Amino acid sequence: MTAIYQRIVLASRPRGKVSIENFRSETAVQTPVAALRADEVLVRNLYLSLDPYMRGRMSAAKSYAAPQPLDQTMIGTTAGVVIASGYAGLKPGDHVTGRLGWAEMGVASGADLLKVDADALPLSTYLGAVGMPGVAAWYGVNRILNARPGQTLVVSAAAGAVGSVVGQLARLKGCRVVGIAGGARKCEYVTDQLGFDACVDYKQARSAEALLSSVRAAAPDGIDLLFENVGSDVLDASLACLNPYAKVALCGMVAGYNGAAQPLHNAGKLLTMRASLQGFIITEHMEIWPQALAELAHLAQNGQLACHETIAQGLSAAPQAFIDMLDGRNLGKQLVQLHKNL
Amino acid sequence: MTAIYQRIVLASRPRGKVSIENFRSETAVQTPVAALRADEVLVRNLYLSLDPYMRGRMSAAKSYAAPQPLDQTMIGTTAGVVIASGYAGLKPGDHVTGRLGWAEMGVASGADLLKVDADALPLSTYLGAVGMPGVAAWYGVNRILNARPGQTLVVSAAAGAVGSVVGQLARLKGCRVVGIAGGARKCEYVTDQLGFDACVDYKQARSAEALLSSVRAAAPDGIDLLFENVGSDVLDASLACLNPYAKVALCGMVAGYNGAAQPLHNAGKLLTMRASLQGFIITEHMEIWPQALAELAHLAQNGQLACHETIAQGLSAAPQAFIDMLDGRNLGKQLVQLHKNL
Repeated sequence: MTAIYQRIVLASRPRGKVSIENFRSETAVQTPVAALRADEVLVRNLYLSLDPYMRGRMSAAKSYAAPQPLDQTMIGTTAGVVIASGYAGLKPGDHVTGRLGWAEMGVASGADLLKVDADALPLSTYLGAVGMPGVAAWYGVNRILNARPGQTLVVSAAAGAVGSVVGQLARLKGCRVVGIAGGARKCEYVTDQLGFDACVDYKQARSAEALLSSVRAAAPDGIDLLFENVGSDVLDASLACLNPYAKVALCGMVAGYNGAAQPLHNAGKLLTMRASLQGFIITEHMEIWPQALAELAHLAQNGQLACHETIAQGLSAAPQAFIDMLDGRNLGKQLVQLHKNL
Repeated sequence: MTAIYQRIVLASRPRGKVSIENFRSETAVQTPVAALRADEVLVRNLYLSLDPYMRGRMSAAKSYAAPQPLDQTMIGTTAGVVIASGYAGLKPGDHVTGRLGWAEMGVASGADLLKVDADALPLSTYLGAVGMPGVAAWYGVNRILNARPGQTLVVSAAAGAVGSVVGQLARLKGCRVVGIAGGARKCEYVTDQLGFDACVDYKQARSAEALLSSVRAAAPDGIDLLFENVGSDVLDASLACLNPYAKVALCGMVAGYNGAAQPLHNAGKLLTMRASLQGFIITEHMEIWPQALAELAHLAQNGQLACHETIAQGLSAAPQAFIDMLDGRNLGKQLVQLHKNL
């Protein structure tokens, strides 16, 4: 069997904001199934996860990972169904997550795929609350911040895939949880549907001082724990409110991903408040994934962990959906549902 | 016996740079020795330590400690000799360090004084390398940075009381040590007399880019450990050179102590390099002082730990010496030798 499918490659590196022209759609031909090597698995991708870290990979600058190569399929996590397998642990019809990129299908080593239970939870959940974003939230809340009852935790990008899980996990631990998000709709979502205690709409603030006042009002006892996804003015406002011995988990600084200057003015608070800060990349802590995924799945199945999804339709919608996500237009986890044109 | 002595009080809070007018000298009358309560000790102060943290206390802003009250004797650590004692553990002639402030004499509870051996080391050393600055260096190097052989450690304000000890301790642990200091004289001092491997003169750099290039050249393998005393552009240059999993001990940000804006542009490196950062105030870690002081005294007696001293003469010289220190005019530990007019 030979199949034709679509994939999206990185055509050029963005200078500043990402644009549609940085991507190129290509038609590819899948190697016949008969040519699969032992241990290889052919997967039909049903969902593609769009995540802020991809922006960093699009640049050539040195970072924690090698840049996305030009003219190669864009990297990305996917959830799909096994079509053919030379790997003992997977059979056709099994559902898996993997890193097959922006493509309608692909071949991966079976060992690089994670079998998931699509009966227990919707398949897409394994790309969000019970996937990489959820694990990042779990690691920050449990291993860096060590959240305890009565502490005030602030999380930025609160309505996003990571932030929404951070707040829910912290609430379950008895924290007072304050989100920071862009827009009234997102703020209503995290307070009304996710149970956050308060949410600051940073788009309402017309100045850094106004933003700081809003954060102060929402966290009147100061900030004990900060889970940072944004950086820039948003981080500055939270830094200004840190309590003594505050802990900061630095998971993302999406405000700077397009290359915009994002000077910090309140870093001195890390000294005067004797704070600790830890930057982390969740794929470097694979040892905690099994425990984290098991706990997150349990919570999701019990209805204690929700994550809204914003789903674009079709691979060709991926570039614009990615650009929109970097602009903060998504609510919850940004996904692309791929054509099922095998 | 009644004695007349001089003290210096905080007359007004500085707005921006500290000026002589923020201080006022007063004549005070010492209570007769006969009036000493049990446990109280009358001390003739021989040396006053001038330290950057005092600038923070001069402001009314909330920080880790209460502000220095107006019209009260300026806080400060002192080394002196016991004149009279109602405390069992101290007798006249004993040498002690304490927090008697900017004054030629004072009374303290005996439990708040530390008896030191002025035969083993010069008395002034107990205010520097074998005092609070030395303990701050020891804590950062041993408990936050956990310096190991072969690592590159960068320390700013390298010729200062803390920085000079940081570099020497790290050298003894087998680190490659790079200092950052202001001026050729300071750089020569730390490389030629303290044995640092290299030193960057930040005053030679005409731009942030030039400073970054200098730090890169001095730390060609990147920075594993950073002991930060300065903040601002100096911190930015070091942040840009951080290696993966770098550790940062944040001890001071003296560049901002006069209220000048000190935006940080490279905080994103804390994320991309998965760095950890810990702000600390050494007086909050009293449990490590005995061990730290013992080790530092041992090294100093063996000639393995040096610290230059800049000594102003007479209490009346203290305000200008303090201002000069904030401007970086001192080399090593800034002290004031007090009148001996008892």
